[in-house]
Amino acid sequence: MAQDMYRSHNCGELRMDHVGQEVTLSGWTQVSRDFGGLTFLDLRDRYGITQLVFNMEDDADLCSQARKFGREDVIRITGKVRERSNKNPHRPTGEIEIEVTSLDLLNKSKVPPFTIEDDTDGGDDLRMKYRYLDIRRNAIKQNLIFRSKLAIETRKYLDQQGFIEVETPVLIKSTPEGARDFIVPSRMNPGQAYALPQSPQTFKQILMIAGMDKYFQIVKCFRDEDLRADRQPEFTQIDCEMSFVTRDEILETFEGLTRSLFKTLCNVDLPQFPRMSYDEALSRYGSDKPDTRFDMQFVELNEQTLGYGFGVFDNAELVVGICAKGQADQYSNKDIKNLTSWLQRPQIGAKGLVYVKYGNDGSIKSSVGKFYSDEQLNEWGKAFDAAPGDMLLILSGEQDKTRKQLSELRLEMGQRMGLIDPNVFNPLWVVDFPLLEWDEESERFHAMHHPFTAPKKEDEARMLTGDHETMKSLRADAYDLVINGVEIGGGSIRIHDRDLQSRNFDLLGFSKEEAEEQFGFLLGAFEYGAPPHGGIAFGFDRLCAVMNGVNSIRDFIAFPKNNQGRDMMIDSPSVISEEQLEELHLKSTYTPDTSA
Amino acid sequence: MAQDMYRSHNCGELRMDHVGQEVTLSGWTQVSRDFGGLTFLDLRDRYGITQLVFNMEDDADLCSQARKFGREDVIRITGKVRERSNKNPHRPTGEIEIEVTSLDLLNKSKVPPFTIEDDTDGGDDLRMKYRYLDIRRNAIKQNLIFRSKLAIETRKYLDQQGFIEVETPVLIKSTPEGARDFIVPSRMNPGQAYALPQSPQTFKQILMIAGMDKYFQIVKCFRDEDLRADRQPEFTQIDCEMSFVTRDEILETFEGLTRSLFKTLCNVDLPQFPRMSYDEALSRYGSDKPDTRFDMQFVELNEQTLGYGFGVFDNAELVVGICAKGQADQYSNKDIKNLTSWLQRPQIGAKGLVYVKYGNDGSIKSSVGKFYSDEQLNEWGKAFDAAPGDMLLILSGEQDKTRKQLSELRLEMGQRMGLIDPNVFNPLWVVDFPLLEWDEESERFHAMHHPFTAPKKEDEARMLTGDHETMKSLRADAYDLVINGVEIGGGSIRIHDRDLQSRNFDLLGFSKEEAEEQFGFLLGAFEYGAPPHGGIAFGFDRLCAVMNGVNSIRDFIAFPKNNQGRDMMIDSPSVISEEQLEELHLKSTYTPDTSA
Repeated sequence: MAQDMYRSHNCGELRMDHVGQEVTLSGWTQVSRDFGGLTFLDLRDRYGITQLVFNMEDDADLCSQARKFGREDVIRITGKVRERSNKNPHRPTGEIEIEVTSLDLLNKSKVPPFTIEDDTDGGDDLRMKYRYLDIRRNAIKQNLIFRSKLAIETRKYLDQQGFIEVETPVLIKSTPEGARDFIVPSRMNPGQAYALPQSPQTFKQILMIAGMDKYFQIVKCFRDEDLRADRQPEFTQIDCEMSFVTRDEILETFEGLTRSLFKTLCNVDLPQFPRMSYDEALSRYGSDKPDTRFDMQFVELNEQTLGYGFGVFDNAELVVGICAKGQADQYSNKDIKNLTSWLQRPQIGAKGLVYVKYGNDGSIKSSVGKFYSDEQLNEWGKAFDAAPGDMLLILSGEQDKTRKQLSELRLEMGQRMGLIDPNVFNPLWVVDFPLLEWDEESERFHAMHHPFTAPKKEDEARMLTGDHETMKSLRADAYDLVINGVEIGGGSIRIHDRDLQSRNFDLLGFSKEEAEEQFGFLLGAFEYGAPPHGGIAFGFDRLCAVMNGVNSIRDFIAFPKNNQGRDMMIDSPSVISEEQLEELHLKSTYTPDTSA
Repeated sequence: MAQDMYRSHNCGELRMDHVGQEVTLSGWTQVSRDFGGLTFLDLRDRYGITQLVFNMEDDADLCSQARKFGREDVIRITGKVRERSNKNPHRPTGEIEIEVTSLDLLNKSKVPPFTIEDDTDGGDDLRMKYRYLDIRRNAIKQNLIFRSKLAIETRKYLDQQGFIEVETPVLIKSTPEGARDFIVPSRMNPGQAYALPQSPQTFKQILMIAGMDKYFQIVKCFRDEDLRADRQPEFTQIDCEMSFVTRDEILETFEGLTRSLFKTLCNVDLPQFPRMSYDEALSRYGSDKPDTRFDMQFVELNEQTLGYGFGVFDNAELVVGICAKGQADQYSNKDIKNLTSWLQRPQIGAKGLVYVKYGNDGSIKSSVGKFYSDEQLNEWGKAFDAAPGDMLLILSGEQDKTRKQLSELRLEMGQRMGLIDPNVFNPLWVVDFPLLEWDEESERFHAMHHPFTAPKKEDEARMLTGDHETMKSLRADAYDLVINGVEIGGGSIRIHDRDLQSRNFDLLGFSKEEAEEQFGFLLGAFEYGAPPHGGIAFGFDRLCAVMNGVNSIRDFIAFPKNNQGRDMMIDSPSVISEEQLEELHLKSTYTPDTSA
């Protein structure tokens, strides 16, 4: 072999066709097995595993050398491809092996801290610290390859649809609204700082005003939030915007993208995406991102339950239940008690649970049997289409809270009853979100989507002139794509009129000065021929996870951060030197607690 | 038309085939012309311009409305496509026009502060402030479309070659080496900060150790440098890394990429890329990024000039010149004097200029005629292959400085003599860079490429054991791609051995603790089976510019920053509030100078 060539083939490509050829391979040593005079060694690279054979009789030196390899040593071998006597049908290279004639150790490995296997013995912290070993595992490696393919297929599709990918800046301006910005102090502009974008929202709108017509970008965004289990301080979006476009054209475009990606990457044909209003989603599923892979829809019982002396229901804003098919016999009193405790945990916070069991023998058992007759309970059952053997689970209380609690219960029951098929993908457009949310605590409106979202055309006049109560009833031209109960993306038709945008800033509690200071460039741009426009953003990390039927996004990110926002491998963030701070005209006010 | 449909076609697609159809278009009003009873209006969008016609006789209301439009109003029209009597062959839609039957003003525009034409009257500052209007101009719009195409073609090519695009983190760790990092204070980790990456260098090496084999990423990088004319604090790279690879395999891969991009985007067939050592480039062109579109190579004259009493040459480390063909008669004494002054400006800093003119009549004129005989001057001419009518321009002094000065002079003469063809693309690999540069000021070595670059195999032993002088002579396995005198990219084979990397850190003046603190994760990773690897990074902004024969990168960036690192449109960076700083455990030490 040429002295400085590392391989003629990779470890995944040799087949029966190659038998008789001399080849050079490089890779990592995986498993070695000695059988008398023979040593078998699995050589691994990104592309696969090839079996190497060393024969004590033919070349004792080489064979002894091979026997000394540990796990994960990096070697280069040359040898002849031959047919295996004992073929491995589970491996693409399983019909051949290499009779090794020469061998170089390229780099020795220490014993890895966990096994490089599909099921590893490494805990989360260890895997993150040695992420380079974790990525060698097939599962993680395939996730990253999937992510790369998903990105390129997304780009090809949008490119074919006439979208232009434009890079928007990462060093932008802090707008202390919504989530917290990460800030980047400027050395050249003392006392000032850039911010990292939470999304390229204003820039993509500017690009529409600039006449780019169809924009997209697969782009990193940043949020300095307290991290929940499955959030990352930096995350990736498929960000899009279109001009001269209606809501339906946007939905059709991104339904097309989603369908194409599922087909190309997962060989799944998605059905037409149904559309459901926000109000309907909440009343039927108690959630604006319902998992529609199973039914178990909410039925409201206020009418049927009112006025029979059961105060809990009588005083409740909402009485609402679900029907668990065939569960009447599965749930003992103790099981119901446990389920009630589960609902009463602070994460869910329900006060109690009412059940009605319709026995297969026609009997009815209920925790509210003293207040309601069997006849009445049968009436309830009819509302749910309940059959003998079914069980109703009913919650009551303040509407929003009760819906959230029942939504959790629905998902839990769906899970327990095995109704959630991980191989099914159920997409859903949720549309017509409220424009504004009233926040009791701060006594002000928040934008449900963001401050640039337009009201529905028919609500525009009411928005310009209406009173406080009217504001609560305004509908936004906003939409979310939900798949299997996970929000994949969301967007809206945007405001493109300066006056309407100013009115929205007013409603959201911006002073004229604040609005001008933070978004003056956009308000100004609206005056120079802003076209009607709208767009959407998909969470790319989450899309990867959902398409693989996985909940956690972390294994689709090459170098994720932990819940404290730390990168365990490079040990970042790290202490900044005083010199660095000084250059930035800053001083630390932090005094480490050394008392502990 | 459907009430909420904005267009049936765009403004660039209607042809003779569409004549007779009713269409709806939306766009910006460009130019309007009245001819008696007719009004012509150009309607523009991203895709082109379509001529609209309004006829006073047919519909006086509509026509009067159309006459009131200013520049850049946003309108929607419906009308019938008809053949133009007066066709415009310079416009793809020039055979047809639209007889408008209905009209909506979608958004009014103020008079723009500069004209939206190919040659605009807007100055730089104005164009940057109203970048959304600037991008509407064809030139900038086409640049952004070119950039988008270049990115997707790059991805397609590398994907086909088996490269995986992996997103590396943006919030990483500060390594106060090389250029300055931007830092991002961490709220959740008080007293600590992330840094923005100057390049994903260590992460891509980690990905090789992780077995990803072939990695690429089109990625934003950041440098807090004092900005020269054509630098940006955030810039984009095509970043790549490969495992089990030789230098030549890397060069071939990226020569293939470059050739494919030029073919696909510019329809240019590039020649094979010649390779030249760093030493040769410096001695022949005085630069490690020579513009090889024209010859005018350096000839050294130390031997020929030494010992004839001309102290300036006698005492010079280097006497070196170029031959300007046919320029003897073009340069009067005054011209030579002006050229000398040009060379003596502080930006270049030459002490003086020696010329020799070979007259067409056989005469020889030279500023050093008193020291050298015509015969001797003819000998010099031979060294340059000079003919009658040619002129030698000779500089002398310290080697490195003199080469730089003569390189500037060569480019200037090439420019003046019209030797630089903007339609020619001359690629060149410059290879075998020095590994280390001695910095007189700080009395330490710097890595010429970066600290992870491997020495050439044959220099490895000398690097491990050599003395100070030996270090200066070490060659790195590093390479740059130069096109038309512009550095498009550079890379190297990397160190993959812990001991060699530690030795390099030693040489670069890192203490063991510093090396461990900053790069411990990489040194550690080298111990778990790091494969031999190498890579390259292309400057994406610059590649865009060079492929378009343009010097400035700014017009290939949608939202560039100015020389003070400011975004003039959004007015960023901006003052950070004390509350924001407080949350980050920081305090500003900056006192604005209010005396001015």
